[in-house]
Amino acid sequence: MTVTPPDPDYRTRCRDSFARQTVMSTIGATLTHLEPGASKIEMPFSAAFTQQHGFLHAGTIATALDSACGYAALTVMEADAAILTIEFKVNLLSPGKGERFIFRGKVVKPGRTILIADGQAFAISNGAEKLIATMTATMMSIRDRPDLKG
Amino acid sequence: MTVTPPDPDYRTRCRDSFARQTVMSTIGATLTHLEPGASKIEMPFSAAFTQQHGFLHAGTIATALDSACGYAALTVMEADAAILTIEFKVNLLSPGKGERFIFRGKVVKPGRTILIADGQAFAISNGAEKLIATMTATMMSIRDRPDLKG
Amino acid sequence: MTVTPPDPDYRTRCRDSFARQTVMSTIGATLTHLEPGASKIEMPFSAAFTQQHGFLHAGTIATALDSACGYAALTVMEADAAILTIEFKVNLLSPGKGERFIFRGKVVKPGRTILIADGQAFAISNGAEKLIATMTATMMSIRDRPDLKG
Amino acid sequence: MTVTPPDPDYRTRCRDSFARQTVMSTIGATLTHLEPGASKIEMPFSAAFTQQHGFLHAGTIATALDSACGYAALTVMEADAAILTIEFKVNLLSPGKGERFIFRGKVVKPGRTILIADGQAFAISNGAEKLIATMTATMMSIRDRPDLKG
Repeated sequence: MTVTPPDPDYRTRCRDSFARQTVMSTIGATLTHLEPGASKIEMPFSAAFTQQHGFLHAGTIATALDSACGYAALTVMEADAAILTIEFKVNLLSPGKGERFIFRGKVVKPGRTILIADGQAFAISNGAEKLIATMTATMMSIRDRPDLKG
Repeated sequence: MTVTPPDPDYRTRCRDSFARQTVMSTIGATLTHLEPGASKIEMPFSAAFTQQHGFLHAGTIATALDSACGYAALTVMEADAAILTIEFKVNLLSPGKGERFIFRGKVVKPGRTILIADGQAFAISNGAEKLIATMTATMMSIRDRPDLKG
Repeated sequence: MTVTPPDPDYRTRCRDSFARQTVMSTIGATLTHLEPGASKIEMPFSAAFTQQHGFLHAGTIATALDSACGYAALTVMEADAAILTIEFKVNLLSPGKGERFIFRGKVVKPGRTILIADGQAFAISNGAEKLIATMTATMMSIRDRPDLKG
Repeated sequence: MTVTPPDPDYRTRCRDSFARQTVMSTIGATLTHLEPGASKIEMPFSAAFTQQHGFLHAGTIATALDSACGYAALTVMEADAAILTIEFKVNLLSPGKGERFIFRGKVVKPGRTILIADGQAFAISNGAEKLIATMTATMMSIRDRPDLKG
């Protein structure tokens, strides 16, 4: 998908919003890349967010994937629009085992009201990248709600 | 679904596993109820796990719902079986706004290899309970893997 | 969910729309019940809609479930609104084996723009009803589109 | 994904199974391409499988996508293994409007027991191909069940 972002200042707007997502700093995630229709979030492994076998919990993976999909969507929105996730589906392909993790979000279908985004989570171990989870997310844009920015 | 748990000691086994899910204590969640095929997890609102508008992040809701579904499934497993989530889908019905949250998991379809569980997330505000999200999760049981207990 | 349908004539509107869904008559499905927020569709087993083992194909089950969810949603819409499915997820619990099938749709969360509905598919064999599949569907209401009625 | 099919005769096996899926001939679908981990199904528009606005019904799209994902999975299975769909999720991006439709299935994650496949549905109008729906499907392989072949 190639889209010209309607807001030329989309990077600043996404980064400001990301900075307000307290959960992102709590899990140690950073927004490392933005382009029209796509985003990348990275986080180191953190024992505080693991399940009973010591792997990253599926919900933590979903947390970072949801934000990756949300910011991919926000890059292609007008400056006054907010993005809310309506639903997402996550497939867990391999354990959340690695030194760090990369989460990529990509808009599959832009739209004025409804956007579809796909996400991919990768675990990095000894320099090798392994796909561990995928997400499909349905997003809705909200306008004229000054209380809900970004 | 009424099922006689094959492991009479299922409560201890579920609580021990929950105690090893570090992410649960990190988000402040406790396992407050277990019965054959069902579980309940509760957590107070916590600003550390919010999105950009100050509501509980969808991924945090998914984290607690996934564990609620997983422990509902674990109640009906034999003592030597572990449960892994293959996939889940979350619908976000209302913002994660409230003083505390309740997450209920329930087995819809037991099975030797594949189990389906449903989850419901409720926000509590001024004593009123509001359904804010639903999950459908597909779980797989793993046996003969001493490294993967619970 | 108890909702007073905004259109008192909702039954006629749903039945007219169902009659225009050619696929419903093709698979032999009939709309046998409507109430605010809920619908029921029934169909006999039909060898023309089976998979390689002679069971009802998952896609045929999804077809009837999607319409059951859609008409459940349409019961609570204003007379000028149409319903489109944005996405659905189906879990297949047991083979589509039976003499006939019942599909129930129920609105879980009404809304002006987005509605969530759940569906359940049952196979009937020798008078016994067995849950064979579940659906969660996200629907969007469309207004002011005279070309898209119902 | 590049995988050497464990059954060198996978094409014959997939085509035989497809020929037994009566619903495929009922909707006019043909299996037009197979390669390790991927499949393509095509069908012409057919008024018999439409919803109330005259577009291909979402369930018919799901039917062809599920088979496309299933045969993509079957290409990489041993000769004695059958494939069953556990669950799928479909996002409907655009109306099912076109002269004919193409459905592509692709294995995202192979596995001995669980396989994940993605599907894409395209509508063809005046030679132009438009993505109208996506699927993510979770498949399970079944062995030692002579009654369930393919």
